Amino acid sequence: MSRIPVVVLGATGMVGQRIVERLARHPTLALAGVAASERSAGHPYREVASWRLAGEPWAGFGDLPVLPCDPEAMPAGTRVALSALDAGPAREIEARFRAAGFAVVSNASAWRRDPLVPLVIPEVNPDHLDLVHRQPGPGFIVTNPNCCAIPLALALAPLHRRWGVEAVATSTWQAVSGAGYPGESAWDMVGNVHPHAGDEEEKLEWEPKKILGEPGRMADFTVSARCVRVPVADGHLVSAHVRLAGDPDPEQVAETFRSWEPPVGPLPSSPRPLFHVHERRDRPSPRFDADAGDGMAVSVGRIERCPLLGVKFFCLAHNTVRGAAGAAIANVELLAAVGLLPA
Amino acid sequence: MSRIPVVVLGATGMVGQRIVERLARHPTLALAGVAASERSAGHPYREVASWRLAGEPWAGFGDLPVLPCDPEAMPAGTRVALSALDAGPAREIEARFRAAGFAVVSNASAWRRDPLVPLVIPEVNPDHLDLVHRQPGPGFIVTNPNCCAIPLALALAPLHRRWGVEAVATSTWQAVSGAGYPGESAWDMVGNVHPHAGDEEEKLEWEPKKILGEPGRMADFTVSARCVRVPVADGHLVSAHVRLAGDPDPEQVAETFRSWEPPVGPLPSSPRPLFHVHERRDRPSPRFDADAGDGMAVSVGRIERCPLLGVKFFCLAHNTVRGAAGAAIANVELLAAVGLLPA
Amino acid sequence: MSRIPVVVLGATGMVGQRIVERLARHPTLALAGVAASERSAGHPYREVASWRLAGEPWAGFGDLPVLPCDPEAMPAGTRVALSALDAGPAREIEARFRAAGFAVVSNASAWRRDPLVPLVIPEVNPDHLDLVHRQPGPGFIVTNPNCCAIPLALALAPLHRRWGVEAVATSTWQAVSGAGYPGESAWDMVGNVHPHAGDEEEKLEWEPKKILGEPGRMADFTVSARCVRVPVADGHLVSAHVRLAGDPDPEQVAETFRSWEPPVGPLPSSPRPLFHVHERRDRPSPRFDADAGDGMAVSVGRIERCPLLGVKFFCLAHNTVRGAAGAAIANVELLAAVGLLPA
Amino acid sequence: MSRIPVVVLGATGMVGQRIVERLARHPTLALAGVAASERSAGHPYREVASWRLAGEPWAGFGDLPVLPCDPEAMPAGTRVALSALDAGPAREIEARFRAAGFAVVSNASAWRRDPLVPLVIPEVNPDHLDLVHRQPGPGFIVTNPNCCAIPLALALAPLHRRWGVEAVATSTWQAVSGAGYPGESAWDMVGNVHPHAGDEEEKLEWEPKKILGEPGRMADFTVSARCVRVPVADGHLVSAHVRLAGDPDPEQVAETFRSWEPPVGPLPSSPRPLFHVHERRDRPSPRFDADAGDGMAVSVGRIERCPLLGVKFFCLAHNTVRGAAGAAIANVELLAAVGLLPA
Repeated sequence: MSRIPVVVLGATGMVGQRIVERLARHPTLALAGVAASERSAGHPYREVASWRLAGEPWAGFGDLPVLPCDPEAMPAGTRVALSALDAGPAREIEARFRAAGFAVVSNASAWRRDPLVPLVIPEVNPDHLDLVHRQPGPGFIVTNPNCCAIPLALALAPLHRRWGVEAVATSTWQAVSGAGYPGESAWDMVGNVHPHAGDEEEKLEWEPKKILGEPGRMADFTVSARCVRVPVADGHLVSAHVRLAGDPDPEQVAETFRSWEPPVGPLPSSPRPLFHVHERRDRPSPRFDADAGDGMAVSVGRIERCPLLGVKFFCLAHNTVRGAAGAAIANVELLAAVGLLPA
Repeated sequence: MSRIPVVVLGATGMVGQRIVERLARHPTLALAGVAASERSAGHPYREVASWRLAGEPWAGFGDLPVLPCDPEAMPAGTRVALSALDAGPAREIEARFRAAGFAVVSNASAWRRDPLVPLVIPEVNPDHLDLVHRQPGPGFIVTNPNCCAIPLALALAPLHRRWGVEAVATSTWQAVSGAGYPGESAWDMVGNVHPHAGDEEEKLEWEPKKILGEPGRMADFTVSARCVRVPVADGHLVSAHVRLAGDPDPEQVAETFRSWEPPVGPLPSSPRPLFHVHERRDRPSPRFDADAGDGMAVSVGRIERCPLLGVKFFCLAHNTVRGAAGAAIANVELLAAVGLLPA
Repeated sequence: MSRIPVVVLGATGMVGQRIVERLARHPTLALAGVAASERSAGHPYREVASWRLAGEPWAGFGDLPVLPCDPEAMPAGTRVALSALDAGPAREIEARFRAAGFAVVSNASAWRRDPLVPLVIPEVNPDHLDLVHRQPGPGFIVTNPNCCAIPLALALAPLHRRWGVEAVATSTWQAVSGAGYPGESAWDMVGNVHPHAGDEEEKLEWEPKKILGEPGRMADFTVSARCVRVPVADGHLVSAHVRLAGDPDPEQVAETFRSWEPPVGPLPSSPRPLFHVHERRDRPSPRFDADAGDGMAVSVGRIERCPLLGVKFFCLAHNTVRGAAGAAIANVELLAAVGLLPA
Repeated sequence: MSRIPVVVLGATGMVGQRIVERLARHPTLALAGVAASERSAGHPYREVASWRLAGEPWAGFGDLPVLPCDPEAMPAGTRVALSALDAGPAREIEARFRAAGFAVVSNASAWRRDPLVPLVIPEVNPDHLDLVHRQPGPGFIVTNPNCCAIPLALALAPLHRRWGVEAVATSTWQAVSGAGYPGESAWDMVGNVHPHAGDEEEKLEWEPKKILGEPGRMADFTVSARCVRVPVADGHLVSAHVRLAGDPDPEQVAETFRSWEPPVGPLPSSPRPLFHVHERRDRPSPRFDADAGDGMAVSVGRIERCPLLGVKFFCLAHNTVRGAAGAAIANVELLAAVGLLPA
């Protein structure tokens, strides 16, 4: 069976490189092209992408000529575009690819708040894909959430389904890779942490409500977030204090994670189990747990009673895999599984 | 005017060294002796204390012979003991010094929950010192709070006085020096963070209520805490989501910090101002702000509306200075100012 | 074909855990038992080994009962002992296992300087194994070098064979895992580096001469070393300024690394290629290159003319894999390949 | 006595900020103006300089209007320019200031190799200032060395004067502040080190020979350097293996550091002592020693016999103070002391 050809938009950045790296060893998807800004187009990938990942540089695609982010320039027969573009250019470029009939699966934030654009985590809300039929077409845009919102929404999902989430106070200990490359200055991060200067908190307060809601209708709970960057390479640690409609004890919550059955069948990059529930008091911890499940699992720990909201716990996921590159790839896998990819 | 002689119990550890370092340049207190475990007693300070601070090793006291933690062994005329003992030995040793007539000013947690032992931050609850008259005597024990509870309680104090605190959700990004020496393993902390394995969260949930209450009566609010160790040398960053009886806007909260008048006159190590209110979105930040006010100020930033509890902000203080060594020294200064030191 | 049973001595420490982890997925060796100090013996492995590696805790061996380090206590039929003991206990325990007929393959430094004990890197000096026939028996001891000496000796080997090494000035940037667990204090390493306080420099100056010499005769060159600990989790970076008998240009040196044929056939954990020669000026770099070749490759870069000694370069290897656990396992593989393992 | 007015060129960068910070509390120099690129000129300093140092932001000069780097735009009566410009613009701008009659004291590398431009460390080669009389004028340019070359040249100076340096193999463990701001990416530096990608090694191999030579004649010794960036905020650690004309033992070398009398009288920022000679095996260490002597001292340790070159040791200095901002300021102080500042 032949693999589905996909092209990567914004292939030179941190997330673009992660997508390329994972496609290089993907069982059902094949990298058909890398695209980037006009300035990079026409050059071999190795010359314009400063490869910043361990392992084989450019994942073996160093000689691939970089294409412009133009649907006309894509390899013949390619109808799927994975976008790791910055939010700015993403808005217009992704729309252009949609208008050209592409399935655009985007990690960018540009279209996440559009009511017709699904914000999807396959293991949580695959039913939101129905929204794509309401988009202008002929193609469509599907987005994945922010790198902090993914572990939080994944951890809230089983609780929301079983008891109903009413309120969440959350904090993050976020890795520097979340800022892209070069991203944070080493001067600011060596032996240091600092409050996140951008709009991460807004995303973390808004996106879980779209994800855990019905297609087109936000879930009705409140999230308050504090996001802090820490000198960790990969892996966002997130704490959550949660008020639920019920009052489960910590063991019930742990059991809910352990027994969670995602509403979608196994996809190529779905980890089994999805949740790693830790017993040790000092876990999860990014250097030890970010790579769990090939970077796609969510590690949960310290599930305890919260005197204020009822229950609290920590969760952790690899921010450029589960939280970005792997999230986008999983959405392509999901689209393939439900028969939504353009022929 | 002669300086008041004080002895340091537990002088070889991280906090003990900080106390010694600060006494070496103190205007009104004089280091009269250093005491430590039986194993160390009798040796010069330099031989038993592996000095781990920048600046002059042993702060010039390397030749001081280490005393046993026995009131009988203290230099004649010394009636004030600053304790940096571990909680275990502190319980009994501090009681013995009290029984011998010493004013024991302790950074240890051993006696903090005793209803007759005040838990004091001079700028917050100096009136709690009244409790000492109810202790068995002839001396007394005064404690300072945990290194995270200090910045949180300091930041809550002006808000509690003006509006009344009802509930707090708090998270920490804690420096490794808070674990003492050797404390955390470098293997666990290099490029990593992890949930605090100890009982820090319980302290942070309990102590602010004693500090902000009346002497002998806890304040009536709930705190829920998540404590995480980060690879920072010094400086605990703390976030707080706070529900107040009133509904101030962020600027009113900021103004309350800026105009705060502590209920005690200026002590030698009181910083002016006590609160540094930051405008930049990425501050406060430990490497840049821990030393503010000679390590005794509290830096506050990102004061914003919290959609869940009303108001949220970050605060930060140097954990072994404002949060430990300097806190204990300030309590001695306070005792001197109010005339409670034994003659 | 059945796998060879091996027991791990000192299985609870950092290197012991790495050995266990790698044996868990080894094609030809099988973990038959874990042994540790008397204090740990009798308990399940999970209770006495604080597992500090990513991935499955205790590599699935958590229920294995820990044995005492006594040859009599080993599982029946086990004749191979991998030792990750500390140098102190290693001296006597390893001798006892040898006397009991075991092939002892040790990462400890205790026996490295014994003239009858080979100090072996399979890809460099497999012929040194001949020495084992001169040992008292009935078993024997084989050691692997120090974690810094391994990458240095590996990188010098092709140059020594082709041109002859005359002198080496070397410096290290060493990861904290090299100190074991808990090892370095986080307080000393956060945003900091420091000269190595132990005898690492002596090992680095002595061991390469034994490895690159003839069995029983040291090579005749001088090494001068400076070792510094840096806040890196895994991966020792080593610089070498080398005077050779010849005067090759950097490209000849690079070509010598690229075309190196080890004097031993491929072993299960031999990486192909052994040397990764980097072109980028900022490589090799531990976080990106330590895992090359499943942790068993040596990354080399910045091969340039040295105005003082002739040629200089950087090399890097994973210190607890290539430099310790993997080195010991490779020596067992070598012993098996040459038919020296006890039947 | 009034302070000498000085202007800072390139005031917005990391070194420019350090110069401004130190001038703010300088006893004999007064900050008369800050200059930067055309893009910044005309704006208040606070708006164009992202202040990245601890302590009072902009050192109290936030409202100072930024000037263009044009001699005509300087405040009336200012004849001294401290330059923290990048090498590129420095070449032409510094020449223009010289042509306008300014004493230009530069931290930039642009003019360091010019035979008529002295490369000066006050405590080492103040006599090189004679070269300024041979410059075109009417002003002149004086440069300070690279941030690694300063501690190395300072440490070599007493040895060179007493015994004569013949050869040096040196390595560095360099702080991230040496790369300016934003400088190194946090992604590259978190839990990582890497070979210096720039021309630092060339500077370290060349500059000490100019500094320790006669005015206009390089010293006749060879330096071979390996420079590596480490995740440290401030403080470059440097190792040196040195061949001297004599063969002193380590204690003689230590004594030579301790008794060193610089060839210039005390300047306002000269530390006393200049060299801190450490006994502990794990020192000097940047987080503990970079601030010694208000950032202007050199810490030396581990003075030992080198089996290859004769003697070896570590030295360390604060790279943006002793190695940059403080170095330039000290050169102004020197010019003032010897009467070379324009009236």
